[in-house]
Amino acid sequence: MSLLDAIKFNDAGLVPAIAQDAATGRVLMMAWMNAEAVNQTIETGFAHYYSRSRQKQWMKGESSGHVQKVIDMFLDCDGDTMLLIIEQTGPACHTNRKSCFYKKAEDGEWAINEEPLK
Amino acid sequence: MSLLDAIKFNDAGLVPAIAQDAATGRVLMMAWMNAEAVNQTIETGFAHYYSRSRQKQWMKGESSGHVQKVIDMFLDCDGDTMLLIIEQTGPACHTNRKSCFYKKAEDGEWAINEEPLK
Repeated sequence: MSLLDAIKFNDAGLVPAIAQDAATGRVLMMAWMNAEAVNQTIETGFAHYYSRSRQKQWMKGESSGHVQKVIDMFLDCDGDTMLLIIEQTGPACHTNRKSCFYKKAEDGEWAINEEPLK
Repeated sequence: MSLLDAIKFNDAGLVPAIAQDAATGRVLMMAWMNAEAVNQTIETGFAHYYSRSRQKQWMKGESSGHVQKVIDMFLDCDGDTMLLIIEQTGPACHTNRKSCFYKKAEDGEWAINEEPLK
């Protein structure tokens, strides 16, 4: 069974993919892939996703240069979530932070945990 | 704005939540939360999710004992994905593996990367 056949895409034809920094172990972002994005990721070795807002496939960093070189790729027990271990060039977040997960629950509010890179 | 108000639940009223091991940094699983599960997680300090197959909220480990004590909770830039830093009791995966992400892409196939705990 090929890599693609084992993936359970949702009704919209998408699968969530978590990107984790190979160097630091930090979880950087979560985005969605369609089958084409999975194939492009495998073929090129760089993470491709599907933008639900723009309704198109894209290579992470294609405009910003903040690409993600894929070191390892995992599928979970249910086959419906992927985990990419990646080498991140520049910040992963469009806010110019290393990770998209910079709002931390503190005293009942989301506190900004990290400032954008200069 | 309360923690809950900032979360963008999807059309089904759910938000994906990634669980990462506080000790090892390993990504253990991804599951879904409804608003009630988020509230229960905050109130109890233990991860609660919503089972889409069983259509009910559940506390992780309520039957297996493999609970997740929440150390930190993050929300991403878009407000539509959560990251829980947790202390995992026992294996996180229902297959008795530490992580649900045990299928690794190797030579065009998903190779089993980890055996179940005895």
